[in-house]
Amino acid sequence: MTKGSFTLPGESGYEKLTLEMAEKWGADCIRDSDGTVLSDEILGAGIPIYSTICLVRSINAWAKQHRQFLQRNFLMSKPVMAEGETLEIDPMDGYFDQQFVINPDDGTDLWQVFDRTGGEELTSWKWDGRRVKIENAVPYHFYTVNFLATRIWEEISMYNHITNDWGDKEHLMAVEPRYPETQKALLDFLDGWLKDHPHTSVVRLTSMFYNFTWIWCSSPRLRDYLSDWGSYDFTVNPLSLKEFEKEYGYRMKGEDFINMGRHNPTHNPPTKKFRDWMEFTGAFVREFGRKCVDLIHSYGKKAYVFYDDSWIGIEPWSGKFGEFGFDGLIKCVFNAFEARLCAGVKEVKTHELRLHPYLFPTGLGGEPTFLPGGHPEKDAARFWACVRRALLRVRIDRIGLGGYLHLTQGFPEFNDKIASIADEFRFIKRLHEKGKPFSTGIRVGILQSWGSLRTWNCAGHMHEHPELPLNHIHEALAGLPVELKSVSLEEVKKSGVPGDVDVLINAGREGDAWSGGDVWKDAALKTNIYRFVAEGGALIGVKEPGCVRNAFRNFALSDVLGVDIENGSTICKGKYDFELTKDHFITKDLKGEASFHNASSGVYALDGDTVVLDADGKDVRVACRQFFGGRSVYLSGFTYSFENTRLLYRALLWACRREEAADSLLPDDTACECAYFEEGKTLVVINNSEEPKRTCVKTPDGKEYTAEIEGAGIWVKEV
Amino acid sequence: MTKGSFTLPGESGYEKLTLEMAEKWGADCIRDSDGTVLSDEILGAGIPIYSTICLVRSINAWAKQHRQFLQRNFLMSKPVMAEGETLEIDPMDGYFDQQFVINPDDGTDLWQVFDRTGGEELTSWKWDGRRVKIENAVPYHFYTVNFLATRIWEEISMYNHITNDWGDKEHLMAVEPRYPETQKALLDFLDGWLKDHPHTSVVRLTSMFYNFTWIWCSSPRLRDYLSDWGSYDFTVNPLSLKEFEKEYGYRMKGEDFINMGRHNPTHNPPTKKFRDWMEFTGAFVREFGRKCVDLIHSYGKKAYVFYDDSWIGIEPWSGKFGEFGFDGLIKCVFNAFEARLCAGVKEVKTHELRLHPYLFPTGLGGEPTFLPGGHPEKDAARFWACVRRALLRVRIDRIGLGGYLHLTQGFPEFNDKIASIADEFRFIKRLHEKGKPFSTGIRVGILQSWGSLRTWNCAGHMHEHPELPLNHIHEALAGLPVELKSVSLEEVKKSGVPGDVDVLINAGREGDAWSGGDVWKDAALKTNIYRFVAEGGALIGVKEPGCVRNAFRNFALSDVLGVDIENGSTICKGKYDFELTKDHFITKDLKGEASFHNASSGVYALDGDTVVLDADGKDVRVACRQFFGGRSVYLSGFTYSFENTRLLYRALLWACRREEAADSLLPDDTACECAYFEEGKTLVVINNSEEPKRTCVKTPDGKEYTAEIEGAGIWVKEV
Repeated sequence: MTKGSFTLPGESGYEKLTLEMAEKWGADCIRDSDGTVLSDEILGAGIPIYSTICLVRSINAWAKQHRQFLQRNFLMSKPVMAEGETLEIDPMDGYFDQQFVINPDDGTDLWQVFDRTGGEELTSWKWDGRRVKIENAVPYHFYTVNFLATRIWEEISMYNHITNDWGDKEHLMAVEPRYPETQKALLDFLDGWLKDHPHTSVVRLTSMFYNFTWIWCSSPRLRDYLSDWGSYDFTVNPLSLKEFEKEYGYRMKGEDFINMGRHNPTHNPPTKKFRDWMEFTGAFVREFGRKCVDLIHSYGKKAYVFYDDSWIGIEPWSGKFGEFGFDGLIKCVFNAFEARLCAGVKEVKTHELRLHPYLFPTGLGGEPTFLPGGHPEKDAARFWACVRRALLRVRIDRIGLGGYLHLTQGFPEFNDKIASIADEFRFIKRLHEKGKPFSTGIRVGILQSWGSLRTWNCAGHMHEHPELPLNHIHEALAGLPVELKSVSLEEVKKSGVPGDVDVLINAGREGDAWSGGDVWKDAALKTNIYRFVAEGGALIGVKEPGCVRNAFRNFALSDVLGVDIENGSTICKGKYDFELTKDHFITKDLKGEASFHNASSGVYALDGDTVVLDADGKDVRVACRQFFGGRSVYLSGFTYSFENTRLLYRALLWACRREEAADSLLPDDTACECAYFEEGKTLVVINNSEEPKRTCVKTPDGKEYTAEIEGAGIWVKEV
Repeated sequence: MTKGSFTLPGESGYEKLTLEMAEKWGADCIRDSDGTVLSDEILGAGIPIYSTICLVRSINAWAKQHRQFLQRNFLMSKPVMAEGETLEIDPMDGYFDQQFVINPDDGTDLWQVFDRTGGEELTSWKWDGRRVKIENAVPYHFYTVNFLATRIWEEISMYNHITNDWGDKEHLMAVEPRYPETQKALLDFLDGWLKDHPHTSVVRLTSMFYNFTWIWCSSPRLRDYLSDWGSYDFTVNPLSLKEFEKEYGYRMKGEDFINMGRHNPTHNPPTKKFRDWMEFTGAFVREFGRKCVDLIHSYGKKAYVFYDDSWIGIEPWSGKFGEFGFDGLIKCVFNAFEARLCAGVKEVKTHELRLHPYLFPTGLGGEPTFLPGGHPEKDAARFWACVRRALLRVRIDRIGLGGYLHLTQGFPEFNDKIASIADEFRFIKRLHEKGKPFSTGIRVGILQSWGSLRTWNCAGHMHEHPELPLNHIHEALAGLPVELKSVSLEEVKKSGVPGDVDVLINAGREGDAWSGGDVWKDAALKTNIYRFVAEGGALIGVKEPGCVRNAFRNFALSDVLGVDIENGSTICKGKYDFELTKDHFITKDLKGEASFHNASSGVYALDGDTVVLDADGKDVRVACRQFFGGRSVYLSGFTYSFENTRLLYRALLWACRREEAADSLLPDDTACECAYFEEGKTLVVINNSEEPKRTCVKTPDGKEYTAEIEGAGIWVKEV
């Protein structure tokens, strides 16, 4: 048993247990959790202490006294049809009134009323304190009001409160740090807190100031009006709007945020204005965040940030993350891509993962975890097997758990499992310290609207948007021996495909940020990609790559990929009657047909030069094509599975003309993957499945090994 | 056994058989078929004779001598990428060279070369008689050539020749009647022919001059480049272009027909230019067609037109069909909607149906019909049951068969079945002569891009485009006791919903002519429909009604229908968690779930005012909603079946607040339908299925009857 690199959630009242488990799991750090306070016994045990803090909801007494300094956001009223020439609209109708109120002191200068049928803003309307009154409405047109709401319940507090039925426990409110008064109150609070916590070594900030957008409705059947990890709706207020105008020379209006009620979710291609707003907000978050970090440092403590909840404006892949001065980045992980998202952030020293399951009675879906009938040890093994693939590729510095430690008491198998996971983690970490694992060196460029800002993610967890093929592509790539960067469509349009990319992947649905939307109408973008592939590059298109309506092709890259999609506008055109090519390098490891639950239907081959490898009837599922000097592969969707990961890897090798790389380090069972640490002369094979496996794998020198591995197990060989 | 109203295909060499079958089937008319010549014995039997003639392919010797007067059309070359600054394109590459040639005498004035990547037309290029040469190409852009091709094989001749392997039989060519020389040759030929056929009473023109668009490729794996019953591609030639410019004051270019390679199929919303071209062509077809009809009349013969093949410019629902002066309209029918399409044309006296199966050895799909193993009597019964529903609603004047009579010799059951069908037809026809059948009086307006021009059809047979819900809606309505008209989106935009419509149906896919496309961005269109429904009207939206991207709603009528579609742009927005309403008037006759093979997924309810009646998981399949004074129903798709027809009927009754109409004349078995002829006091119940049925039905006076009906049978009761 090894020690260290493990953060344990301590619990007051369970001092003995805390210290016992610290010993068992090799913890070198004890943290508190939301709602727990560590006792003096734990604090004095000589083990470094992590303390969590969420600044913006930490000064509730002050917030109650200063409602003008609460956070705000724009909301759009329900559309209401004019039956005659006058019309009244209650803007708040349908919204959760414990989350939102209209602050009369804000006035209505920032409000807008739209005729959504005619598409025009109204110049004249009245507000009586309850309703917007419109005279001279056009009968049978629908009208909406964009209004500025004040938020009176911080969303995470609200969610935990309502989910756990906390009754009359205080509703915490999020203060708006744009105001100098708020900044002073926050820094005063932080200063006091730092003084009061001499035992704390690491201050773990539950992100910074602005929660991801989470707008609730009043209806129990429609809780979420909007929920997005990457929207900046909650950063808007009269002061920020004013400062933005001063800095950027133009004014953002409510409608720029409301966007016909669609807002600006990460999954849609961003407007220039919205990107300006993000940059503007990021600069502020970094600037004031730095002040907080500096204050923490001034007390000789470290500052870590938890990359969740109030992460808006943090953007660890913005290239400016270093400005915060954080010492550590902590990411809660369900999946391998989230581990890569954390590990790849260069501007921070310590990368830590918070593993699942959390020490909570129930899991995400309400299933028992630490309750009778629960098997947290199985959950832990399964989550670990998901994440471990990534840890074989890149180094993570620490792992840890969250929640209430006493819950583990009835689950000794869980405690044993965590002990073995912690050991396994420390072993893998040591391998990385000796040298890098084998990589094909293939440099994948994920081509989407956001570029590097959304490296390794589409914002959010896999289970929130399993319909997005790019989520699954990220997950598959996270454990493969390839390099990854994200490239924006705008930069390829302006400057061509970057020189450090061997293969481009565009994976999305028509019009979304991952496919790209209207930018594909641009000739330079298309030409730069045609050129890249024609000169020997590689392209993988997934689902509806570069898809725009009413263009020469439906897929802008159709001529490269050799496929296009029938969207109803070409039903009279003949479709090439392809013959399936059954035996091909790319599909060699598929046992049956390829299966993507997010596949697009209606994809057809342009002509006989497209080699169709898999199809659902007449719908192409997997195809490849030579395009002048380069190669392309098309997949009609992509969902993470062992077989599909292998399919993607082979597609990458084929597209990059690196087929020989499949000759070694590829276990014959697709449930297994391996890593080879040449400096350490260590071959590691992992079993990603829950069943025991026996699999063969060759090292690059041609020697073959047989690994017998228990379910979710690991096999290590000095070679 | 009754007599009359039946057209028999006679066959030379089978004189006895011809006369026997004429007797058996009660034929009052004998026709020839393509490839058959009637003998003197038949001609002299005293039975009126139909003769078929297809003018444009009738003067092949002349056509060979006058290739400048052959029909032409624009084609687009394959897109070719420029690897450097020069590029050569072979325009004909990929096209079937037995159908198309480039006539050097036409020159290249009408050609266009496009940079399809940049989207611009080139001003400079050269043609060397084989290839188009481009200098100063932009490397990595794709280029295409629009060129004028001459057609050297008339498409129906080509199809029959190739399908039946006619070897060195002459290839017939279609002449271009725009040229005065051609008109003279055609009229001379027709005059001679009329002289030579004194026994002929009815000249049946196999439509007029221009075939539906049918462009073939050279590849055996991609026979059709484009195939559409409603495209006007084959009406273009140097002379028509010149005359168009003179008449309309602007010039149509090749690209107006090529349209980025998409052409102008009926299934896409038409451009103003293309509608002008159709009107221009129609005027010519009617004008020269009238000359042909007049000539036929001058010989004391009748002129019927067969509504298929070369029907371009005929358009029996244009409102100008009467200008031809035809005496009869013949439609070959697989389905009920085709019978309605024929029956509803007012400007002609005789409406005749050509029933399936044709007397050909094999059926459409190559299955044996009049070959060993075939059961033509079953086919006949099935086709008849499909079509008969329509005949209970409206009067058709004649039926008949086509093909080679001798094939029936081994199939006495078929001959008996036709005899009984002919009797049944004559019985139904007599019922109509006594008075009209019961109708709810509900006036359905089919709302699409074309308006009345495409009444009762989307151009083409059901089996060609089963993916179109409107095809199936037409088929279901064809047997229901409702009235139908088609209304164009343009007219509703300009003048509102016509006063003679009770319920609008919009049924299509995003962007197609049946849904409507971009016109839905227009405020007046939406407002007029909101007003219509709000004031008590009814709306049924099917699949993707009024669907346009990047608008306030994805479905323009979303606020009326209470549903919208997730197209990937609103994945962060919450969706109302509806509860299914199981017991409802609309879905009362569904035994299980509604099933549409062309359903759209991702449709969700806006809020709790939408009553969801059927769903596939979280995807709405059937929903209804009160919208101010009116009602709406949404269906996620529609395919014709007995249950779905009942579902549609009930949806119509509910939407029109006519639920009481379901109390009578609705057999309790959905496979059965009934008609009630009040003047004749006759209740008719038909069994549309192949199984025997026992079903109850009430007359409007509340009396209940039980009908026992054999498969595909009919039950008649004087009441």
